[in-house]
Amino acid sequence: MALIVQKYGGTSVANPERIKNVARRVARFRAEGHQVVVVVSAMSGETNKLIALAKEMQATPDPRELDAVVCTGEQVTTGLLAMGLKAIGVDAKSYTGAQVKVLTDSTFTKARILSIDEANIRRDLDAGKVVIVAGFQGVDADGNITTLGRGGSDTSGVALAAALKADECQIYTDVDGVYTTDPRVVPEAKKLDTITFEEMLEMASLGSKVLQIRSVEFAGKYKVKLRVLSSFQDEGEGTLITVEEDKNMEQPIISGIAFNRDEAKLTMLGVPDTPGIAYQILGSIADANIDVDMIIQNVGHDGTTDFSFTVNRGDYAKAQGILETVKQKLGAREVTGDNKICKVSAVGVGMRSHPGVASKMFKALADEGINIQMISTSEIKISVVIDEKYLELAVRVLHRTFGLDQ
Amino acid sequence: MALIVQKYGGTSVANPERIKNVARRVARFRAEGHQVVVVVSAMSGETNKLIALAKEMQATPDPRELDAVVCTGEQVTTGLLAMGLKAIGVDAKSYTGAQVKVLTDSTFTKARILSIDEANIRRDLDAGKVVIVAGFQGVDADGNITTLGRGGSDTSGVALAAALKADECQIYTDVDGVYTTDPRVVPEAKKLDTITFEEMLEMASLGSKVLQIRSVEFAGKYKVKLRVLSSFQDEGEGTLITVEEDKNMEQPIISGIAFNRDEAKLTMLGVPDTPGIAYQILGSIADANIDVDMIIQNVGHDGTTDFSFTVNRGDYAKAQGILETVKQKLGAREVTGDNKICKVSAVGVGMRSHPGVASKMFKALADEGINIQMISTSEIKISVVIDEKYLELAVRVLHRTFGLDQ
Repeated sequence: MALIVQKYGGTSVANPERIKNVARRVARFRAEGHQVVVVVSAMSGETNKLIALAKEMQATPDPRELDAVVCTGEQVTTGLLAMGLKAIGVDAKSYTGAQVKVLTDSTFTKARILSIDEANIRRDLDAGKVVIVAGFQGVDADGNITTLGRGGSDTSGVALAAALKADECQIYTDVDGVYTTDPRVVPEAKKLDTITFEEMLEMASLGSKVLQIRSVEFAGKYKVKLRVLSSFQDEGEGTLITVEEDKNMEQPIISGIAFNRDEAKLTMLGVPDTPGIAYQILGSIADANIDVDMIIQNVGHDGTTDFSFTVNRGDYAKAQGILETVKQKLGAREVTGDNKICKVSAVGVGMRSHPGVASKMFKALADEGINIQMISTSEIKISVVIDEKYLELAVRVLHRTFGLDQ
Repeated sequence: MALIVQKYGGTSVANPERIKNVARRVARFRAEGHQVVVVVSAMSGETNKLIALAKEMQATPDPRELDAVVCTGEQVTTGLLAMGLKAIGVDAKSYTGAQVKVLTDSTFTKARILSIDEANIRRDLDAGKVVIVAGFQGVDADGNITTLGRGGSDTSGVALAAALKADECQIYTDVDGVYTTDPRVVPEAKKLDTITFEEMLEMASLGSKVLQIRSVEFAGKYKVKLRVLSSFQDEGEGTLITVEEDKNMEQPIISGIAFNRDEAKLTMLGVPDTPGIAYQILGSIADANIDVDMIIQNVGHDGTTDFSFTVNRGDYAKAQGILETVKQKLGAREVTGDNKICKVSAVGVGMRSHPGVASKMFKALADEGINIQMISTSEIKISVVIDEKYLELAVRVLHRTFGLDQ
């Protein structure tokens, strides 16, 4: 008998029929003798509907009140799933975040979980009940309702699994696992049986939007066994996200090729090479609430240096405007940019112990005549910025080069 | 400066525009220096939508889970109204029933309020905030969400007013007050400036669905000054529901003519006149969850008696079937019935001190050739059952007879 936390996203509970499917799946796990805690999202579309209502009331809705409104979406799903389980003879009980209670800080709309009281859940599990918890929400020390931000239901699931010391946290979604790359780009892409947390973090942050990054960090920190599965298939083991690299198997050097079409690059040329430059440039970008992805500064010469970074494509024009102002202040030479670029990354813990991954990657791209505009590396990832027209070609070539097709 | 509790029903908060209207009204009361607590219902249609979803999941939804689902409707309105107030510069804060907390018993879907903790509300009011509370809901001692049953938001409003010792509880609805009778039947019907709790109870139970009966009982018990007003008009004082009869004015004998089209009568003839007969007949009716309205048993003769009662017309066939079974058991002679009847009542505390009201009423009906089938009286009400085809005629005649047109 195992204790399993299952999390179902919005598309998995989009309507009563799908919620009944979820109930049947949960019932099978119960029939096998497992204890099951289910974390649910709002029915797909509901959260957006509630946000739209809020924006009709107030252009920028008050964060506390917005949380009080949007948290109801998940709450409805918990009750409906409990009914669905009772309708097929499985005892179940719904909980809001406040009822659990999932204690968070008071940062409305993006609160962080501080602790989870597992006493009530444990008691209900021991009484043979399935416990259903509203994802995405908690309550602060003053009893105000908080939400964890978009995708926060994944984090709720992982946090509950950590608090309950569950044997496994299963994230049910509309894909059947994590792939070596996007199958829409490379039909030969293979589902991975396992992936490490670090790799998953790099994959997730690069656009493979299977899991919310925070939930993966959380799972890594608390050593929660995390599994991504399809809620629309009854077969399949999904992808297990593990803390440890698999020692028993020949470790592939690269686990996957991730990419992001949605970037733009900006460069400030001829910046005086003095301390504090990076802060002065990126500080004003951050003040405008623009997220920066890659940041590159090469060694300077003649007392100046060039400073580049990438932003979300939607922020390109705004970032350009800010840089022009900063340019004046710093006495830099020129601001250039390009919003027709993309980022392609090879991710794999294997590269730690295998030298030569980078050069193999660069050679493969050069052989296809693809010019590399920027390079950034981490311990387990090599990212390149290239012209967006080469995206598919680059992903296919790298997928083959690192043997992911087999 | 007064402390006012205002309650807005579903049609008053049906969409963002109407919620903004409510916000503007609340803001005016604040501007006049009053402290305001607002109790809101779900946006009209929302509760039915949630119940329909629940019924798709489970034919008879689990009561605890049904409450967890439907309570979200009011919760959404509270947050939206708080945003609407903030948008026009009025500080406001929303509360769920659990956050207040409104402690109830554990009778899901029709819980009773046990106590209200007013500490948080008082603190926010003193800080200059408008406090917005989700109507219709509470929380039991174990932290389960409960609801008070249909129309329970009125009761929430009155209970809050009682707990806070508010100066007035204003119920905003889609009519501008309580009328001497239904203006659709008698165009000369007049809005009453005041009505006593007892009269209101009789009027409400007879089909003038302005206020939920429980809320009127509650207001009477805790001496809450209750006022019914239109949320669609800015003018008008509505109708004040008072504990005391107005000593300063010539008390009208009759305050209003109420009626109910939705009844059916059943009679068991020739029942052996022995103790326990009423219980044996009505017990089986109650076991089938059929509500009984009027009950009449006249003196018996020859060892038998006749027993009559009225039920909701929708329960007529079911009640008939039950009576046939009971007839066998009791050895009664015959079951008769009629579902083409209606009930018309004259209501007024004045009849306590004015004899002759009943005979005046019966004469007026007789003068029009209207046959009275059943009569039932209370201290401040006389009800008659007549053929439904005479309903409008009877109401108009009585309205004129008791001088309500003037």
